[in-house]
Amino acid sequence: MSAASNQPPINFRSDNVATVCPEILHALAAANRDPAASYGEDAQSAELTRIYSELFETKVTVFPVSTGTAANALSLASCVRSYGAVFCHEEAHIHTAEGAATEMFTGGAKLLPLQGPQFRISPDGLRAALARVERGVRNRAQPDAVSITQASEHGTVYRLDEIAEIGALARHAGIKVHMDGARFANALATLGSSPADMTWRRGVDILSFGATKNGAMNTEAIVVFDQSLAEPLSYRLRRAGQTWSKMRFAAVQLTAYVADDLYLRMAARSNALAARLACEITALPSIELAAPVEANLVFLSVPPAVIATLAAEGVLFGRRGETVIRLVTRFDGSDEDIDRLIAIARRAVGRM
Amino acid sequence: MSAASNQPPINFRSDNVATVCPEILHALAAANRDPAASYGEDAQSAELTRIYSELFETKVTVFPVSTGTAANALSLASCVRSYGAVFCHEEAHIHTAEGAATEMFTGGAKLLPLQGPQFRISPDGLRAALARVERGVRNRAQPDAVSITQASEHGTVYRLDEIAEIGALARHAGIKVHMDGARFANALATLGSSPADMTWRRGVDILSFGATKNGAMNTEAIVVFDQSLAEPLSYRLRRAGQTWSKMRFAAVQLTAYVADDLYLRMAARSNALAARLACEITALPSIELAAPVEANLVFLSVPPAVIATLAAEGVLFGRRGETVIRLVTRFDGSDEDIDRLIAIARRAVGRM
Amino acid sequence: MSAASNQPPINFRSDNVATVCPEILHALAAANRDPAASYGEDAQSAELTRIYSELFETKVTVFPVSTGTAANALSLASCVRSYGAVFCHEEAHIHTAEGAATEMFTGGAKLLPLQGPQFRISPDGLRAALARVERGVRNRAQPDAVSITQASEHGTVYRLDEIAEIGALARHAGIKVHMDGARFANALATLGSSPADMTWRRGVDILSFGATKNGAMNTEAIVVFDQSLAEPLSYRLRRAGQTWSKMRFAAVQLTAYVADDLYLRMAARSNALAARLACEITALPSIELAAPVEANLVFLSVPPAVIATLAAEGVLFGRRGETVIRLVTRFDGSDEDIDRLIAIARRAVGRM
Amino acid sequence: MSAASNQPPINFRSDNVATVCPEILHALAAANRDPAASYGEDAQSAELTRIYSELFETKVTVFPVSTGTAANALSLASCVRSYGAVFCHEEAHIHTAEGAATEMFTGGAKLLPLQGPQFRISPDGLRAALARVERGVRNRAQPDAVSITQASEHGTVYRLDEIAEIGALARHAGIKVHMDGARFANALATLGSSPADMTWRRGVDILSFGATKNGAMNTEAIVVFDQSLAEPLSYRLRRAGQTWSKMRFAAVQLTAYVADDLYLRMAARSNALAARLACEITALPSIELAAPVEANLVFLSVPPAVIATLAAEGVLFGRRGETVIRLVTRFDGSDEDIDRLIAIARRAVGRM
Repeated sequence: MSAASNQPPINFRSDNVATVCPEILHALAAANRDPAASYGEDAQSAELTRIYSELFETKVTVFPVSTGTAANALSLASCVRSYGAVFCHEEAHIHTAEGAATEMFTGGAKLLPLQGPQFRISPDGLRAALARVERGVRNRAQPDAVSITQASEHGTVYRLDEIAEIGALARHAGIKVHMDGARFANALATLGSSPADMTWRRGVDILSFGATKNGAMNTEAIVVFDQSLAEPLSYRLRRAGQTWSKMRFAAVQLTAYVADDLYLRMAARSNALAARLACEITALPSIELAAPVEANLVFLSVPPAVIATLAAEGVLFGRRGETVIRLVTRFDGSDEDIDRLIAIARRAVGRM
Repeated sequence: MSAASNQPPINFRSDNVATVCPEILHALAAANRDPAASYGEDAQSAELTRIYSELFETKVTVFPVSTGTAANALSLASCVRSYGAVFCHEEAHIHTAEGAATEMFTGGAKLLPLQGPQFRISPDGLRAALARVERGVRNRAQPDAVSITQASEHGTVYRLDEIAEIGALARHAGIKVHMDGARFANALATLGSSPADMTWRRGVDILSFGATKNGAMNTEAIVVFDQSLAEPLSYRLRRAGQTWSKMRFAAVQLTAYVADDLYLRMAARSNALAARLACEITALPSIELAAPVEANLVFLSVPPAVIATLAAEGVLFGRRGETVIRLVTRFDGSDEDIDRLIAIARRAVGRM
Repeated sequence: MSAASNQPPINFRSDNVATVCPEILHALAAANRDPAASYGEDAQSAELTRIYSELFETKVTVFPVSTGTAANALSLASCVRSYGAVFCHEEAHIHTAEGAATEMFTGGAKLLPLQGPQFRISPDGLRAALARVERGVRNRAQPDAVSITQASEHGTVYRLDEIAEIGALARHAGIKVHMDGARFANALATLGSSPADMTWRRGVDILSFGATKNGAMNTEAIVVFDQSLAEPLSYRLRRAGQTWSKMRFAAVQLTAYVADDLYLRMAARSNALAARLACEITALPSIELAAPVEANLVFLSVPPAVIATLAAEGVLFGRRGETVIRLVTRFDGSDEDIDRLIAIARRAVGRM
Repeated sequence: MSAASNQPPINFRSDNVATVCPEILHALAAANRDPAASYGEDAQSAELTRIYSELFETKVTVFPVSTGTAANALSLASCVRSYGAVFCHEEAHIHTAEGAATEMFTGGAKLLPLQGPQFRISPDGLRAALARVERGVRNRAQPDAVSITQASEHGTVYRLDEIAEIGALARHAGIKVHMDGARFANALATLGSSPADMTWRRGVDILSFGATKNGAMNTEAIVVFDQSLAEPLSYRLRRAGQTWSKMRFAAVQLTAYVADDLYLRMAARSNALAARLACEITALPSIELAAPVEANLVFLSVPPAVIATLAAEGVLFGRRGETVIRLVTRFDGSDEDIDRLIAIARRAVGRM
């Protein structure tokens, strides 16, 4: 019988298994006083716009939405023609893990996958792809946008100059830049940058601003920098069933999320747990990093026997083939769980 | 200076301006303990299915979603071919107030509006419409479903035998029955029926089960009776960005909502406020009902001068043309607000 | 045994049962000499543009397409947002008889049917509908176009001042005007107008220019007056499978169709047959016009017994309920067929 | 001044620059006698079904359509759910050269490109891809079909046992097999097989049967073997504007096309021209085949200077990068053109 049987599982499956941070729960309760105007006409939604415009140091439009899939697909639908196309990394979440949501909401646009190290598009790769585009050729889907994921699905982070170069290429080519920021805070904490410097100052036009993985309750936001996209998007959101009637309960979450840099502190916490986990587990023989650890995702090369032991001992994690696993740390994770994980791994490695 | 200036507005605009009931807020806090599996694989989602299957006295599949628009359009997309069509009342919310969401999510199906008294489809009207259908004619959109709203957009309620007759007609014609239950609880409280008797026992295949207007926090549910619809729908929901990662926070709301008949007690309260409001205001000269009051919506014929006074005095309500207004009561509404409203109306009528 | 048994049927079913006029068959053969560039890059397509620009007295873009459904739905897709809407008559072909093609090609836009005498939108009706539009309201489909059918599905014809008034209303409202000209030539022959005067000079932005019903071989054209619509439309057409590789065989048909006013002469012939048919048949007792005859469609009120006799005697026609029939004349129709029809009708009426 | 200046260009650009074969022109004229029922209810369409059922030695449904893009995208829409996916070669026409038509007509399904030698899917590649499918995972597009191009876009031909193996894999996986037969006749002529043996007997469910590149006038056909696909497809075609009113003029083309094996004789002619061209041109120094020649496409590696000379001398061909060109032969091509091409190439090579 495994040692894990009397304890809760050691859960490194995903950051979307997390709890909601107390500040956000508190904000929900505090918002629940009086009736309020619906569909975003309330005071808290106006306040959200004001605060995010301050946070991003420019006028932004903020649309709270239910999920990252909605944020990504509808952001892209706002800037891609139905006969258009989107450059993205071949491992981008929008391409591999959103059930063709972008294809649906755009009316059938095409994703054009690019290769690139560590799940990141390289500026050179984008430049080459843009050079191959047959503009005006009627039977080729015409690129309208490029989407980058920050932090990437591999837990790596675009550097500011990379974003800037991608932004400049896009601007020159007349296409928009979308950032899938499901783990925006983790990337920001890593870079020590400002929200403005990591986005519109480098050419980002529209942002899926993640919050759920980092402490919110089923609430993400689309942050629009290019204001020409905002009005069409507002219709698409309403029609997609993404405009909540009691919008204030989304707005106050997003406001609480960034107050006093809460989001950055939570992201820094999960990043630190990932760094500690990575450091200690790769000190064991035969376990190695499968990707740089730049956010809260740890990809490891692990012998199959050790993987089997981890699973048998109740550790929850993701698998990427025979010898690679993904461990995700959370803002509400504990050092004890890492201690327990390392102990199990040490025993498993020792037994080999 | 108006008398209303130092007080909060008297808000009869809509039930979606309501607060969240304390039981649901409490359930959210209680659910926020440990990490949990995501996307509905959690224990609370399983519990939701169990409880709603009991509530409806049959095996159901429950999909929590963000909004009524999502519930309606995706329910219909699960049973209507892209070249299909949906019968609905010409004043149905899906036809007039959801930005063509059903057209989008079905891939371009057509709504076929029917007339009928008090915003309800009559069985005879549906029978006649079905008789006119040119089945198999390739250039006619082919009906696949009929959608009824219970309670209707006019605050009226289908009787059980009417639902049964519509259900039987649909079954005979080989089409599905969708119920838009944005105000399901209000209708149920009025009829004193059971959830099963008002739905699948009368032929309803799939239900948009409203909760937000009656105390939930931006959470509705699709309740599937015809299990053949459930799997395809699950893909459509994920793709539509309607499958929350932290699904347990929707599941516990929906569970708390029906525990100890909470939802019925809240609906009964708002229905009672509507009945009182209607009774007292129509006792005033020159104000008359514009529709029967069978739920929590009160449509009134009011002289324009009185309408102007109500607005000037800070009463919030909806307008339907020059002389008709809509007042909506809520589970969290107060008798004091009705007192104030009646007082203002009395003065306004007296001044005429 | 009926008198019809040894003869071909007397076919007034539709103008799409017609043959192809000899001039067009000849043009096809003449075009079949050498290889030519594909997808409209050929000399004949350039010639088509030149000739139609002359014909319409302004620069036009011409896109040959397969069917009227393709012409209508893709024309509208070029000027209606996916969350937009189109005003049309409630009996418009795009609304009742194209299998929701417009809904599909627009990505789910809504048709907003208007009533109006003789299947025509009245300027007053459109004015009232525009006044009711809730611009900017996010849950209402937003009108982007109005579509009128010239000649209408009832065989009636918009007068030039009506088109002008509709055009002015549309321009003022910021929406586009589409003309479904499946029977464009018939209307033009009736009015004695010029193509320019019946279209862009009265505010039409894009035209479905019918040719198949009036002698062409499965070839219609979209004629674009508002040049901003042309490029997006060219992508949509290619993607819809409506851009023929051997485009010259469509181009030469459309060129031959208008050479020496052939299309007008053919339309005048079918109009004249309709006029004669209407005149003679309504001279019989108990048969009356059910609509004015202004093109090549004759709607008649006829006693059911007479309808039954006509059918039994091999006359082919359309039915519109119990007592109304539709007879359509063609450019290749014969006076003999009308003689035969009148004879049968006379006998039938006499027998009553 | 180039030698080419007084002669027509030597046109090896594509087979869609071809003329229409005389037999088909004759059939069009012969069909143009009497009025006929529309939308495929005519005698010639019934005859087409009968003849193609004989040709394919099984009951088939035949839908004439305008273009290969329509044939492919609508065939796939008939067997792929909107949240489904299609395996195809990464260089498949449906993926690279149809403007995302399949994505549109399916309602947003995804193409899953596979690699494979000579633009053909290998059975092993498909087997591996099927093994990687995560069936039932809600955020992955679910495969519903595999599409193969016969002859391929590289002019290569699937062997019968390869088709059979792909068919068996598909059947086992519960997905459909679509064949893009834009050059069906060329492949059939090469294999010396029968239509039945190259299609449904090897597991093909639905076929885009090309005719335009091989002598028809803008007419292709969808040939349906799996009869469960036919009715839904008939609605989709009508709605897509692909159901011609004067369908007989498409039907008689397709009937004439296969009468007395005309289509095979024309394909054999273009294949033979390709073989001769390939043989003679690769006898020249520094010119080599870039792909096997198995149909009517010749891909050559050619020094850039020679390519420049060919272009300067008026030879029309396609370019594939710096040193590869594509030459396409046609049923109506001439040996003289090949003589002229070889002469120019010989001079150009000699000059190097």
